[in-house]
Parts: sequence; structure tokens; C-alpha cells
Amino acid sequence: MQILFLRYCRRQIALVIRMLSVGDNIEEIKSALEFLLRDADVVVVTGGLGPTTDDITTTAIAHTFDKQLHTDNAVLLQIKGIFEKYRIQWTDNNTKQAVFPLGAIPIVNHAGTAWGYSLEIGKKLIVVIPGPPKEASAMLRDSIIPLLCQRDETKQQTFRATVVVKVFGISESKIDKLIADSGLHALGVDVGFYPNFYEVLVTVNTYQANEQQAQKIIAQAKKILENQLGEHIFSFSYEALEATVARELMAQQLTISVAESCSGGLIADRLTDVSGSSAYFHNGIVCYSNESKTKLLGVPDEVIKEYGAVSKEVALLMAQGAKKVGGTDIGLATTGIAGPTGGSAEKPVGTVFIALAHDAGSFCQHFSFRWDRRRNKMITSQTALVMLLKRLQNKNLCCITHYFQ
Amino acid sequence: MQILFLRYCRRQIALVIRMLSVGDNIEEIKSALEFLLRDADVVVVTGGLGPTTDDITTTAIAHTFDKQLHTDNAVLLQIKGIFEKYRIQWTDNNTKQAVFPLGAIPIVNHAGTAWGYSLEIGKKLIVVIPGPPKEASAMLRDSIIPLLCQRDETKQQTFRATVVVKVFGISESKIDKLIADSGLHALGVDVGFYPNFYEVLVTVNTYQANEQQAQKIIAQAKKILENQLGEHIFSFSYEALEATVARELMAQQLTISVAESCSGGLIADRLTDVSGSSAYFHNGIVCYSNESKTKLLGVPDEVIKEYGAVSKEVALLMAQGAKKVGGTDIGLATTGIAGPTGGSAEKPVGTVFIALAHDAGSFCQHFSFRWDRRRNKMITSQTALVMLLKRLQNKNLCCITHYFQ
Repeated sequence: MQILFLRYCRRQIALVIRMLSVGDNIEEIKSALEFLLRDADVVVVTGGLGPTTDDITTTAIAHTFDKQLHTDNAVLLQIKGIFEKYRIQWTDNNTKQAVFPLGAIPIVNHAGTAWGYSLEIGKKLIVVIPGPPKEASAMLRDSIIPLLCQRDETKQQTFRATVVVKVFGISESKIDKLIADSGLHALGVDVGFYPNFYEVLVTVNTYQANEQQAQKIIAQAKKILENQLGEHIFSFSYEALEATVARELMAQQLTISVAESCSGGLIADRLTDVSGSSAYFHNGIVCYSNESKTKLLGVPDEVIKEYGAVSKEVALLMAQGAKKVGGTDIGLATTGIAGPTGGSAEKPVGTVFIALAHDAGSFCQHFSFRWDRRRNKMITSQTALVMLLKRLQNKNLCCITHYFQ
Repeated sequence: MQILFLRYCRRQIALVIRMLSVGDNIEEIKSALEFLLRDADVVVVTGGLGPTTDDITTTAIAHTFDKQLHTDNAVLLQIKGIFEKYRIQWTDNNTKQAVFPLGAIPIVNHAGTAWGYSLEIGKKLIVVIPGPPKEASAMLRDSIIPLLCQRDETKQQTFRATVVVKVFGISESKIDKLIADSGLHALGVDVGFYPNFYEVLVTVNTYQANEQQAQKIIAQAKKILENQLGEHIFSFSYEALEATVARELMAQQLTISVAESCSGGLIADRLTDVSGSSAYFHNGIVCYSNESKTKLLGVPDEVIKEYGAVSKEVALLMAQGAKKVGGTDIGLATTGIAGPTGGSAEKPVGTVFIALAHDAGSFCQHFSFRWDRRRNKMITSQTALVMLLKRLQNKNLCCITHYFQ
């Protein structure tokens, strides 16, 4: 079982988010819920709502608060409807997903079969949602956070303003230092850092008695962040980098093709995660063998022999080849050594060349990454997409190249 | 802050795994640690070891157990060495990562800069490791679990045997039902289900006084699982599906090329996640536009016009085209509507054709998936790789096609 304390709206909310154990843990859950309710106004429990025998959250909650269990027939019908619609065979243990403690208010789950529910315990609130991250986060966003905001009296009297920035090519500790030196903290704002391997999300929040004041402070905060973090900022939004790139490509009506060696299809995968990507993404070529670089992208065999497949020369020809083959405005290419094998003294694991070809010309950058295979692929895709975004925005690239070279 | 209770070696271990809040939470951490230590022999705290101001784990632990803090110079030198090696600019707040409570034994972190440590508190043990999942899981595997096994006296007197199976094309609730009906539980084993969107990992453990007895019971359990779950089992190992496919391709000395439309490069990405994949993976073509299907794979324009890009006919020609262009033994292709837009009454979102071409012939399967864009891509890649694996093992595919059609 996992318990998460989360500060939200400046008040403490505690989340029990997952049970890892089975069997005799009803007493453990009870003890954890009691512990959490000592300090928290709201406890959100996630997980353990499925149909299988190890899903005991509802039983444990009924036991803890001495509630009877009952089956909600409207919910049961809706769940059966999903099974019918997708022709999944019904088994009776699924009935369990329509069982609630007496007094609970069911909360619909649009991404799965198990409903959530809320349950008032005196002045406190227990909220229960399913464990799968996709379902839990959709329900948090759509149902739970609005429900909590409604209950939160302090929230009703204060206004929150927020600025978020996504930062690349600079470490979390450096960002913290730059922010500490910037005077940002003097504004009395809450600053949060969320490093995610290849990017750092920085959030700044202020809570004020009126909205104008909140907005004014956050505008100052934004200016300070821009000054201190400069071109390392690639986004002022929570959206994924590939979505930011997509918006920029569509705004400029540009099309792109990709040629990937060491990133192995990950750039194409990320670009095509954006709905409507067929408007700008024509094709990707994952050319692992030298023959495929020659055959599919027209990189001359002699160039590969002279400089090696992992070289600036080959990367540039791959990008130009991708652009030409795809008939697109832009060609983006990667070649490198993802590891853990294949490195040499001259070109160690993590050596990567990323090239971009467009109508005005081509350029290539050389990087030395330092991680395991998967993370070398991830950082290659991220660096390539940031390079592309910066070029689309006519910004220089020194912030990226300085860090990794 | 996140707290995780985890049953391990049949004894309770409690993990504090992450702090989400900053500032005045030292008292909260203290209270949580005291709560956990009431029942647990070992508390593992993860996260909050970084260099930034919101990283307060070590301070909180020193406060809770009334320990002084000191800087370990050997650790500091090692961290500075990493910064130098990768030419990352040193900032003084990184010194914090070499600060420990007096009496702590530092634990090296091979995947990052922040070291962990263990600290004896009477008969109990506090273990502290960094929060980033890659670092935490590597340290758990390499240092913490061995350390805990060493301490666990019950473990030293019992023998554990385990069987794991990975299952595809059947829901968690159906698996639970089949297992409940199978007599498996009568063996007195522990059964765990770990659904992971597109596959379910089932683990069965037994603990016995001697090794032979444990092995005997687990052999019976394995037989029961094979009987009940049949060809839905695609692996008896924790390894990723792409690694299982890789082993099979290499054993048979077969090569593969991939043509992806709706899966957008994800199959290539997964296949190239396996180190050494250049031995069997030649190239992938992500053909989003109709022109690229024609130009790169030789799918005749008329066929696309007559049947549509999302059709059995086009999928088969894409697979054959991939095989031919790549000069490989196998061609694997996907075409479909990932959504959320692009669906029609005849071909709704989730309609996917997966085709496989090999020397003995080609075949294609039609699927109706039902998820969001990312999950439709994921289930397409998984289904394609399971189809490939089953074909490589000369097994039939009805277990897959029955479920999704």
C-alpha cells in the first residue's frame, strides 16, 4: 500500500494510492486510514477496486468505518454495457466493481470499468478511485479536484495564479541556484521543481486576496524566470514537447520527415502521439543497417565507409535524404551509439549526431550523452525535438549544445 | 510525501518514497517515520536527496532521530568527479548530496549523483535512497534488497520458489476466475496479479522449509497455469516482450523489417530497445502519408484507392514491401485508425490491421481496439509483437484474435 501526502490548495490532503499486498491487510489499511485522518481533511484512496480477489479496498473501507456494503444496480448495468459493447466475456467477479459502502456516492470512470466513490465520515471525506494511472489521473482532473476545490473554504476566499516553465539542457541544481539568486523567492511565491529525466518542470504559484494582485505577482515571476533561465526554457505550458512542436509546425504550415538510427523510431513515435499529426508528419525511416541508409535515404556507401555510420557527414546526408524522400520542408536525423555495446575510444557509447535539413540549409550537432540505452534514446529524441523547436522559433541552440558537448 | 507499505520476505517493510511538499514538512516526515516504525522493522525513504532547497529528507531524518549532520569527503570527491567527467558546471548546493546523519553508512548510486545511506536506529533500520525511479529501482535491486535479505532471519530458514507468467489477450478478472477454478490456491501458494495495460503479470510464490519441496510445489503450480491460461501465456519471465522476441529471432537467425502506419514507430522503438538489435532489425518505415506507402514500400496507389489505406489488402502489401525493401526474412506491418479523429461508421477509431510476411507466406488480422490514441498505439505494438512471437514459436493465434475481434 502506498500513501501519498500532497499539499493542495495550501491544505493537506493525504492519498492512499495503492495496495501492493494481499490477504490479511485489511487491518493495515484501517490503521493507515486512521493515521491519515488524524491530520488530513480528505483522504484519497486509489487502487484495489478491480474484480480480483486481491482487490480489497472497498471491503477495508467498509470495515474501517463500520459501513455495510451494497450493490448499485445502475452502476452494474453500465459496467455490463461496457463488456457487451466491446464483446468482453462477462465473469461474475466483475459485479464487485458495482459494490459500495452504504452512503457512498459513486463517481463515473470514463477510462475504465471500476467506478470511484466519495464517502463522508463526519466532517472528513474519503475519496476512492481506481489505481491504473490513466484512469486515476483522468478522474482526479475531471471529478476529484473540482470536488475538492468546491469543499475548500480557503480556496473560495483566495485567488491562485500560476506560471509553469519547462527547461532543458540545464540541471535541476543549477536551476535552483539561478532561482535562489534571482530574487524570485522575495515575491513570496511557492516554487516547485519536477525533474523528469530529460526536462525540468518549474512551477510558481501565488495565492492572493484578489485576482489582480495574484496576476501581477505572477507576471513579475515570469519575467524573472525568463531572465534567469533564458533560452533553456522551451515551453510555458504543461503540454508535451511533441505537442508544442506540432503547434509550431502547423502554425507555419511546415511538413517533416525523420531518419532515425540510434533513436530507433522514438522521434516518429513521439511526433505521431499528437492527434492530427498526419498534417505535418509524412514519414519516418528507422535505418539500423548501413544498407538501409544507402537504399532508403541515398547516403552514398563511400561516405559511410570513409566517415563511419556515426558521423556528422552521414547525419547530414540522412537529414537531407529524409527531406527529399518525404518531399517535406524539414528532414531530421539521428545517428549514434546508444550502447551498452558498440562504443570505441574515438566514439564512445553516447556519441550522437543530430542533423536538421530545411530549405535554407542544413546543420548538425555532436553530443556526448552518458546514460543507459533507453535513456540515450530518450535524450536523443528530446534533444532533436528541442533543436527543431528552437529552429522553428528562430532561436539559437547554444543552450543545448553547451550542456551536452 | 509518499509512503509505501510493501510485503517482502513475508515481513513488513515500510517505504517513505517521495516528498511532494516543501518548507515546513520536517515535522510531517518525523510523524510519518514514527508511525511507520511502530510496525515495521525497516523503513526505506526515497526521494528528497537532491541538491535543491526542497530536498529535506536528510535534515528531517537527522531531526527525527536527533543526529548531527556531517559531510563525507570521499563521497563529495566522487560526486565532483562525475561533474568533471561530464563537464557539468559545479554549483555549491551539490555539496548537500554528500551530507549524512552521523552514523549513516553511505550507499553508492551508479545511476546518478545522490548517494543513499542506511542508518541503524536501535534494532530498526532506516534506508534512504534517491527518488528518480531509475536510480531508486537500480539501488533497490543492487544494494537494498540484498541488504534486507541479509538481515531477514526468517528468510534464512525458508526457501522460496517462484513462477511468473505473462499473459496477453485475456482480462485480469478472467484470469482470476480461471485461477480460482483451477485448484491453484489449494497448493497454499501466494498469487499476485500485476496488470500493465496490455499484459498481465501473474506471480506465484511458495515458501517451504526445504528447497526440494518448494520446487515441487512450484512445478505443480506451473502446470496448472499452463493448463488454465493456455496459449494466452507468452512468457515465463519478467523480461520485456521485445526481449523475448529478440531471443527467438536470434536463435532462429532471422531478420526483420517493420512498416508502421498507426503504431507510428513504436514497434521499431521497442525492437531497438534491446541491445544488439542490429543483428536482426534492419529497418523500420513509418509511412503516415499514402505517398510514402507507395514510394517507400511499393504499395500500388490503386490498391490504396480501392480498399483504403486502412485495409487488409494494404496491410499485407506493406508487410511484403517491408520484407522486400529490408531484404529480411520477415516483414511486419500495421495500419489503422489510432484516433481520436479519423474514424468512420465502417472503420471506427481502433480499427487496426496487422500483417506479417515471411518466406512461407503472408497473413493479416483485423482488430477493433477501444482506447485512446496512445493506448491504441501501445496495444497495436503489443499485439503485433505477440503475433510475431507466436508465429516464430509455430503456435496458433486464436487466443489473440478471439479477444480483440
